[in-house]
Amino acid sequence: MFPQMSYDFDLVVIGSGPAGQKAAIQAAKLGRRVAVIERRHMVGGVCTNTGTIPSKTLREAVLYLTGMSQRGLYGQSYRVRDEITISDLLWRTQHVIDREIHVIRDQLARNHVTLVAGEARFVDPHTVVVSSGAADERRLRAEKIVIAVGTTPTRPKSVAFDNSTILDSDGILELDAIPRSLVVVGAGVIGIEYASMFAALGSRVTVVEQRARLLPFCDSQVIEALQYHLRDLGVVFRFGESVTGVDAHEGGTITHLASGKRIPADTVLYSAGREGATAALDLSQAGLEADGRGRVAVGPTFQTVVRHIYAVGDVIGFPSLAATSMEQGRIAACCAFGEQCKAMSNTIPYGIYTIPEISFAGKTEEELTESAVPYEIGISRWRELARGQILGDQHGLLKLLVSAEDQTLLGVHVFGTGATEVVHIGQAIMDFGGTVDYLVETVFNYPTLAESYKVAALDAMNKLRAVDRVIWAARSNRRRRKAA
Amino acid sequence: MFPQMSYDFDLVVIGSGPAGQKAAIQAAKLGRRVAVIERRHMVGGVCTNTGTIPSKTLREAVLYLTGMSQRGLYGQSYRVRDEITISDLLWRTQHVIDREIHVIRDQLARNHVTLVAGEARFVDPHTVVVSSGAADERRLRAEKIVIAVGTTPTRPKSVAFDNSTILDSDGILELDAIPRSLVVVGAGVIGIEYASMFAALGSRVTVVEQRARLLPFCDSQVIEALQYHLRDLGVVFRFGESVTGVDAHEGGTITHLASGKRIPADTVLYSAGREGATAALDLSQAGLEADGRGRVAVGPTFQTVVRHIYAVGDVIGFPSLAATSMEQGRIAACCAFGEQCKAMSNTIPYGIYTIPEISFAGKTEEELTESAVPYEIGISRWRELARGQILGDQHGLLKLLVSAEDQTLLGVHVFGTGATEVVHIGQAIMDFGGTVDYLVETVFNYPTLAESYKVAALDAMNKLRAVDRVIWAARSNRRRRKAA
Repeated sequence: MFPQMSYDFDLVVIGSGPAGQKAAIQAAKLGRRVAVIERRHMVGGVCTNTGTIPSKTLREAVLYLTGMSQRGLYGQSYRVRDEITISDLLWRTQHVIDREIHVIRDQLARNHVTLVAGEARFVDPHTVVVSSGAADERRLRAEKIVIAVGTTPTRPKSVAFDNSTILDSDGILELDAIPRSLVVVGAGVIGIEYASMFAALGSRVTVVEQRARLLPFCDSQVIEALQYHLRDLGVVFRFGESVTGVDAHEGGTITHLASGKRIPADTVLYSAGREGATAALDLSQAGLEADGRGRVAVGPTFQTVVRHIYAVGDVIGFPSLAATSMEQGRIAACCAFGEQCKAMSNTIPYGIYTIPEISFAGKTEEELTESAVPYEIGISRWRELARGQILGDQHGLLKLLVSAEDQTLLGVHVFGTGATEVVHIGQAIMDFGGTVDYLVETVFNYPTLAESYKVAALDAMNKLRAVDRVIWAARSNRRRRKAA
Repeated sequence: MFPQMSYDFDLVVIGSGPAGQKAAIQAAKLGRRVAVIERRHMVGGVCTNTGTIPSKTLREAVLYLTGMSQRGLYGQSYRVRDEITISDLLWRTQHVIDREIHVIRDQLARNHVTLVAGEARFVDPHTVVVSSGAADERRLRAEKIVIAVGTTPTRPKSVAFDNSTILDSDGILELDAIPRSLVVVGAGVIGIEYASMFAALGSRVTVVEQRARLLPFCDSQVIEALQYHLRDLGVVFRFGESVTGVDAHEGGTITHLASGKRIPADTVLYSAGREGATAALDLSQAGLEADGRGRVAVGPTFQTVVRHIYAVGDVIGFPSLAATSMEQGRIAACCAFGEQCKAMSNTIPYGIYTIPEISFAGKTEEELTESAVPYEIGISRWRELARGQILGDQHGLLKLLVSAEDQTLLGVHVFGTGATEVVHIGQAIMDFGGTVDYLVETVFNYPTLAESYKVAALDAMNKLRAVDRVIWAARSNRRRRKAA
């Protein structure tokens, strides 16, 4: 007998979030025997149970029930429901979570992936023990292992988390009422998405953030527009401030800032950082170790220093987006089982579900300026598109960054309704090296938001030509003077 | 003086619909003096005033106010308003029309395009007379002329149009109540879009169509799904039937079919055909003539037989979609003024705003089979996507047609929420010759409908591999037998 015959599975995946799921499905499609380990009631991981799925569902319910997306048409005070309760919002959320879990279980089952319930820990580099209760332990030996355990919120001791008024981002669904006032500590993607939603619901929101602006990896014009709209909804920003502690009192919470300010609020959402959920994994038994924030280091194809063990998803750090994590999972499984194995090469999109939403792919203006790549800007505003008028979106815009040298598309930045969908048109064009001329000559359905690509491309082209015209005029003047 | 100095304008455009607007703006961007002729109260043409814009706005209002798009989440009987009146619907529509007209006027003004109010007719190949009242006539001489007059509904004598119960598609906005029952004669794009809307509003709709199915240029699986859903909303189809006449009576209308059937209904929408609005143009004065359906013939760059006169938009016939017409207008203006002049070469998308909506680009299965191009299908269903669950869309799907020879994308067919937007991702990939591998390796925002491209690509790839596996197995068996 060959030694690998003693393996229970070809692949064991620890964690069933987006990264783990896709790793498992890919290996199964390649004909491998696969198990996924997940704690009971956590199928789908943080993404499905307390993260992406509930927050995006909540957002959709907020947009719909507040009439937020319809106010351009029905007036500023329009709401579908005058009194929106937390149960209106959470009913829908629980419904979507349940169905998403059903879809995941179904996909795993259809692909003959074994789902093992319990908490995993390594006992040697090929063996994981799964415990689901004091006496119930199961040993799984696997040829290859994928770590996709995700993250947990950072919970500093100075913050008096109480699961009712002082919450972390995984606990926000525990709220039993919409707070009249809310402090959001940490304006990362998660913090600012929730800040948007509660502001739309009418909570008085204060955002405390150490940096000087929101989301510094995004286009600054888009962030300016986001900040403007959130302020318009009553959000107060405390930029450049840090929190020294949060206390719960009978009448509410107090957030203490290093600058001496104290902010009272019904509720505090503490969302400053997450760390790799590796504490219980006994990584050292596998010959691995995590960094100070619980993260596992990997190479470009997500292999750890132990060659048959891979790590994917939030546990490896940036960008920690479900979409990227899925592709990491798929790549890791392909590499583990001798399929064509290459690092991610295509443009990666970023989607941020604030209100209004943001999405981009490719370079920002700041990056291009820094690397001295000349570019021109083309802009299309939703309110100048028939679809924008039909939707009542007054603020949306698409911004294209176009190379001034070869007219290729270098970056696409979208703000407003549909941003996370339409960004992919530009992403595809960038991946194929398409130019602004392509967009000018392309037919887009009317009325759509997609049409904004053509409008913005025409805008960019007219600006590029204005430069040419000045240069041509100067040249022909010189020639005329010479001839005279 | 040169003779052309006597021209009032470099370009006169007759008609301010999508085709005319874009021709005018393009010529203006090229520094030309441009005039657009349009009848009073018809700026934007049929598209803006009685066609695309009002019908798409009406559709959005119907989806929203009936809660149609939310029933997957809030239950089959969910409605935002229990009693939807025609004024709820038309208030929104008039609002959007007014703003769209404002945007068009503003764009023309910003580009210094002169808008001339009145009815145009040729007096010679370079001269158009515009009359806006009995005594008020103005002569415009132009170097180049673009005919973009659009179409008017065909109104056969056997149909007793009365502008209240028996209407053509331009008159549907005149309705003063939502009909309890409606007969739609002619299931072209316009007819079936209105049939969808009134079915969603609860009208009992009968569709009479000479052909055996809806929209024969679309994918047959998508049309099957559309027919299924419309029947589910109570729509009765009378395929293979022709109408011999429609009468108005006091208690309602009667539609007579050639088969002898008589269909009673509150209202009839007669939408069987449109013809070029060229009757009043005096084309012969310009050396032109229209065909039996009022259409003007053009070459690939929209030039008529008179070289300085172009025709664009619905007046030249198929496909008569606003999006395509715009591009025709742009191309005509580029060609007229010596810019790079080439015929449309990129893939053309089709968008049909039924409920659910339909969009496609590239080939259909029927076309590929007929030209003996082998292909594989990849499907993704909205209900298996997190975004589909969040939206509550149970029926949506994306179907990719992938070359079995080189894995390039040959066709993209989308049914359901967001179809007209997301189709453009596939359209771009087809234009650049992208393959299914590109889609498999691409990151899409999560949760979006765009993600369906990756899901469908994985599906197609697995099917393509299944063929390879069978062939490889057969080959290695043969080799083994030979060796034995």
